Amino acid sequence: MSLLTPPAHVDIVEVAPRDGFQSIGDPLPTAEKIRCIQALLDAGITRLEIGSFVSPRAVPQMADIGEIVAAFVDRPGVRLAALVPNLKGAELALASGIRELVFVVSVSETHNRSNVRQGVADSLAGLAAIVERLRTLDEPGGIRLRLDLGTSFDCPFDGRIAWPQVEAVLAPALETTRGIELEVALCDTTGRATPYQVAEHFSRLGERYRDGQLRWAFHGHDTYGMGVANALFALHHGATALDVSTAGLGGCPFAPGATGNTATEDLVYALHGGRVHTGIDLCRLLQAADRIAALPGGQTASHLRSVPREKLTKC
Amino acid sequence: MSLLTPPAHVDIVEVAPRDGFQSIGDPLPTAEKIRCIQALLDAGITRLEIGSFVSPRAVPQMADIGEIVAAFVDRPGVRLAALVPNLKGAELALASGIRELVFVVSVSETHNRSNVRQGVADSLAGLAAIVERLRTLDEPGGIRLRLDLGTSFDCPFDGRIAWPQVEAVLAPALETTRGIELEVALCDTTGRATPYQVAEHFSRLGERYRDGQLRWAFHGHDTYGMGVANALFALHHGATALDVSTAGLGGCPFAPGATGNTATEDLVYALHGGRVHTGIDLCRLLQAADRIAALPGGQTASHLRSVPREKLTKC
Repeated sequence: MSLLTPPAHVDIVEVAPRDGFQSIGDPLPTAEKIRCIQALLDAGITRLEIGSFVSPRAVPQMADIGEIVAAFVDRPGVRLAALVPNLKGAELALASGIRELVFVVSVSETHNRSNVRQGVADSLAGLAAIVERLRTLDEPGGIRLRLDLGTSFDCPFDGRIAWPQVEAVLAPALETTRGIELEVALCDTTGRATPYQVAEHFSRLGERYRDGQLRWAFHGHDTYGMGVANALFALHHGATALDVSTAGLGGCPFAPGATGNTATEDLVYALHGGRVHTGIDLCRLLQAADRIAALPGGQTASHLRSVPREKLTKC
Repeated sequence: MSLLTPPAHVDIVEVAPRDGFQSIGDPLPTAEKIRCIQALLDAGITRLEIGSFVSPRAVPQMADIGEIVAAFVDRPGVRLAALVPNLKGAELALASGIRELVFVVSVSETHNRSNVRQGVADSLAGLAAIVERLRTLDEPGGIRLRLDLGTSFDCPFDGRIAWPQVEAVLAPALETTRGIELEVALCDTTGRATPYQVAEHFSRLGERYRDGQLRWAFHGHDTYGMGVANALFALHHGATALDVSTAGLGGCPFAPGATGNTATEDLVYALHGGRVHTGIDLCRLLQAADRIAALPGGQTASHLRSVPREKLTKC
């Protein structure tokens, strides 16, 4: 695919309500979360990672996930996903009406143990348990699964991740999930991936896996300034969904002052320049970004928000 | 050219000593400028826009250009260029030993009048006068010319710039400069260009101009977060030189707090990830960036400098 002819459409997956809200030390009031999410929907966001069904003791920021989901689960035209760390979380998510589950496993054994306190094999067993549960549903086709492969490019402990390490986790995961509607995200957890590494890994996906039910996504951070470039290189090598966070809300776990997920508004600006359809109104998205950036305790990083609003045509 | 196979080499053109030093209100001490430039050369920078031969009344920051050039003009393996606004500046530059002249004309009539207080036609006449002078030299082949086409994508006054507007200035400029060793830079003066617009304009250059003596360059800003992506899209569509500023020194004339030229270290990080040869040692470049970022009154913006140094492998 030439750089001159980008795909006509890409799914923008907004992760501020999960990655972003979780990064704020003191849990936000539920009503404020709901106002922020409503502002995102008003801007035209249609895919949203709305939160996590995790232990409120481990992650108090997500203790109100049930209320948050209840506020939005019946909205037509909005695709909500929730992160579930295990079968128990999946049960809670399904009971809440969530139709898309996000499961995370890191490609790096070291990072997986640090992140979810178990080895990759145990995480894959957890994935299998969730999939087994999905197969018992009357409407298995009605539930989507998103698999986030953390540290697909770089690990904060082990450094660069080569393609065979990704495949070593991806292959058994695909075996486990056969027949389920699946989207796999290669996640640049540290922000250290370069555009060429992103292009290489996505081109390998395209060469090796040609199952029409599979979709590919890229989840990136802008910590090293590669955010927009990495997302576009993924797009031109087969990604059909891109994870971003409005206002760049998120911060970076290892580096105070470093940025979080690539800002939704920065990526949307780039995509609209190529006439890629996202369904998002950039002006209203910036209004949502202003609200999110005003959250107490939030760490944000957005290029578009740093320029005077009148410089943004039509905003 | 596939995104998987970038060119083997690209010229990194460091513009901090011109765009950057000029952006600092109170002129820097000459000795400090020399120390910063030396640090850049120590990092492996081989192309440098070292300053401007302009009226010291108009631009006091460049009053010491003669001393600066004298300190570096005899360095082997270093290609120095200096901006010259007119024939008088060109004469001074040539007398100082400079072998590459940079001439700026904006594609936008409005911006050209604002920037250099004359119309585009008068600027082109000024270019012709310089070229005529070059043709009288004993060694015309020994002098290079760089033509910076300002506002090649967007004008702060007129908005988006379409390709025919670029061509309307480029075509007569190429006629004027025939036979001279020329590099033409499309400059994203405002930082508002998107990667797809960059790809489009460079692909037009490649289609229409096939003179082997011509080289193409891209001069970008990171104000809207497009810096690295725009540079890479230019690279994959024929640019063989990329202008950048270490530490992102420069600031933005219209937006306090907005960023200046794309940071050299951010772009070099991206390029090295694709094994593109730049000749630059990233660790030493970051040392130069630290020195530049410490300049009093300087406004900088660098992603790489914002992460802990130990996260940068081998730095």
